[in-house]
Amino acid sequence: ADPARAQIMRECATWLASKFREMRMEPEIVATPGAPVVLAKWKKGGSAKRRTVLIYGHYDVQPAEMGDGWTGDPFEPRLIDGMVVARGSTDNKGQIFAHMMGVAEKIKAGGPETDVIFLVEGEEEVGSDNLEGVLRSRKEELACDVAVISDTNMAGPDKPTLTYGLRGISALEVELTGPSHDLHSGVYGGAVVNPITVLTRLLAGLHHPTGQVAVPGFYKKVRKVAAWERKAAKALRVPDAEVKRQAGSPALGGERGFSAIERIGMRPTAEINGITGGYQGPGPKTVLPSKASAKLTFRLVPHQDPKEIADLVERDLKKRCPKTVKLKVTRHHGGFPYFCDPTKGFGPAASKALSQAWGGKRVDYLLEGGTIPIVSVIKNVLGVETLLVGLSLPDCRAHGPDETFPIEYLERGAKMNQALLKEIAGV
Amino acid sequence: ADPARAQIMRECATWLASKFREMRMEPEIVATPGAPVVLAKWKKGGSAKRRTVLIYGHYDVQPAEMGDGWTGDPFEPRLIDGMVVARGSTDNKGQIFAHMMGVAEKIKAGGPETDVIFLVEGEEEVGSDNLEGVLRSRKEELACDVAVISDTNMAGPDKPTLTYGLRGISALEVELTGPSHDLHSGVYGGAVVNPITVLTRLLAGLHHPTGQVAVPGFYKKVRKVAAWERKAAKALRVPDAEVKRQAGSPALGGERGFSAIERIGMRPTAEINGITGGYQGPGPKTVLPSKASAKLTFRLVPHQDPKEIADLVERDLKKRCPKTVKLKVTRHHGGFPYFCDPTKGFGPAASKALSQAWGGKRVDYLLEGGTIPIVSVIKNVLGVETLLVGLSLPDCRAHGPDETFPIEYLERGAKMNQALLKEIAGV
Repeated sequence: ADPARAQIMRECATWLASKFREMRMEPEIVATPGAPVVLAKWKKGGSAKRRTVLIYGHYDVQPAEMGDGWTGDPFEPRLIDGMVVARGSTDNKGQIFAHMMGVAEKIKAGGPETDVIFLVEGEEEVGSDNLEGVLRSRKEELACDVAVISDTNMAGPDKPTLTYGLRGISALEVELTGPSHDLHSGVYGGAVVNPITVLTRLLAGLHHPTGQVAVPGFYKKVRKVAAWERKAAKALRVPDAEVKRQAGSPALGGERGFSAIERIGMRPTAEINGITGGYQGPGPKTVLPSKASAKLTFRLVPHQDPKEIADLVERDLKKRCPKTVKLKVTRHHGGFPYFCDPTKGFGPAASKALSQAWGGKRVDYLLEGGTIPIVSVIKNVLGVETLLVGLSLPDCRAHGPDETFPIEYLERGAKMNQALLKEIAGV
Repeated sequence: ADPARAQIMRECATWLASKFREMRMEPEIVATPGAPVVLAKWKKGGSAKRRTVLIYGHYDVQPAEMGDGWTGDPFEPRLIDGMVVARGSTDNKGQIFAHMMGVAEKIKAGGPETDVIFLVEGEEEVGSDNLEGVLRSRKEELACDVAVISDTNMAGPDKPTLTYGLRGISALEVELTGPSHDLHSGVYGGAVVNPITVLTRLLAGLHHPTGQVAVPGFYKKVRKVAAWERKAAKALRVPDAEVKRQAGSPALGGERGFSAIERIGMRPTAEINGITGGYQGPGPKTVLPSKASAKLTFRLVPHQDPKEIADLVERDLKKRCPKTVKLKVTRHHGGFPYFCDPTKGFGPAASKALSQAWGGKRVDYLLEGGTIPIVSVIKNVLGVETLLVGLSLPDCRAHGPDETFPIEYLERGAKMNQALLKEIAGV
């Protein structure tokens, strides 16, 4: 989103289009109010039964600077111990390039078993604001049977993984105003209610002591997790100790009756992403502040609706807020959760392709705790499911310094792409 | 405390000393590691029964700039509608100068009825860090029967007021660390406990729903307020509506069973002066932060001890803090509460003097919610009580822009000083 990089973004889109042209696909650079979207088609047509696969990726990356802790220029790729070290290597350049390699090879040999549309955008890291418009205006042209995205993690090295669900999100901001101006906490404290105190009570009330979210109605639409899913979660072999190690947390917590990996994938959350109020400089200051505020996000699971959840939260806060402060709730973005039963539709095809690419290894089934809003948009606008066949590893440091991608996963990914298109054609 | 003002501070001390010399007192500028203290004595001696009064004031002021909302240069006094408008006019230059005027006039006429020591420091606004050392090293020289300070508010215009108590203070800072680094709230939220969430629970637990402080043992040493005190509080005629108006608060709150003015003067508090954690910029950010912290002050009433209260609070926080975060408590300053029964000792003398200076008006008795730590230091080191005979009005805007002091209160204050010394001599 850095305006200074707009020219480089356009150059990247042009480079992608030329690459698609080299592959003998038909590329087009679609202008948007933001970064352009690159579309590229390979259509054989003919049989009405012939399937079309939409492969989504993004060419934009997170900002990076040497000062963040990089051991070399983040935009000058280095190959170290079989890993490509560069910003975007795993998120999402390496992953989308593996699919391009797979399709390119097949086209040289006469073409893959399905028609293919690549859709590579440049605004994923800043909310994909302009992509829905492109999908809607190009709806017929983008008609397909299924979408494929490699922008998620594998459960671990050599653990081919099908992500069959994502959490949604509902983001809110809460601001409380007590006195009209900051007061001396000696001269007024005890009689004038402190908005920070009220805020701590409101926010502490978001959870039950059991770790469950306490907003009335919050769990009403939460789907029941199937027995096979809890088995699959166990099969991931990501013990609580591993999550604790990654987080560097003194101890884990959360909703009773679930493992860490289950809490992250299968259960919704209420999270305070930021809180602010009063004096924050060094040492003490005896102020009774006028305002206090907090940023909240709720991670959602099927079939929770981000707007309904925001409504429930706002109602609960309003009900519990005392008359001593004024409450203002601002809504930020929302994203629907996603769930695609891997035993149905194209799920088994994806599993088979993943297993093949990793030499017959068992495929893991993962519920991702994060949100990829575009997956729900694809479902809503194009009416198709998305196969989330990630090639990234948990320690690839997406968004962090020295982001890496295993160079051999380019070949693996290309093989997986070829197997996947073949399997999809056969469904 | 602005180092750029150090030279002006020294000039101010020199001016004060020369003023005391003009008054035919014996001034001395006492160097400290910070701003100098100005001492000035007028001793007649003779009778062993002759009393000595220590009059305390401070020549330092809060910072002030035009940008704060001043309607003229804050350091160029203006006389507007009978009010001196200038930084320090009420806090504390006008109030201490009234005492100097009173004593000067009496010295011309042969001297007041008591010996007098002025002690005017330059670090009141930054915690009086060096004053205790001066008191201790000059203990014999500063021996006196009672101290007098005019650095508090009157209950209102033409309401002569004897402040007979001050709240103490105990300041703490709480920091919680959860994960060792900021995490993605999607990827870890639900399993890794958010330190902001824990902080809101710990802080919400500082109060009972009744408004009482919930820290075990907090009220153990709180003295019982006498019936006459509640009568005196009522006689102040400061209704809750007036406190609400001053604060611009939607509604007042606090401990049940007390009026606003009683809650401020007679009851202790737990206040959150600042809270911080996670993302505070515009819009949302899905971070699960590593740290969250808050600044707390507890206002204390007799006979609470600031160190004991800090111990109780720290013990309570440690007991309630879950294992999912690391708790760090930092102690800031403490100050003892103060209480001096106005019906005993020199109290009646002060009441009589106040009433005389205001033409026989009834004297109000006030408990101040703020803290003046030096009053306890005077009691501890010199062993004497302090008469708090404030000349400031609630709307004099001490510490604020366009600070004012009624010019006629210089004369009133001088008369009050003369009456007070005479009454003290007669006790």
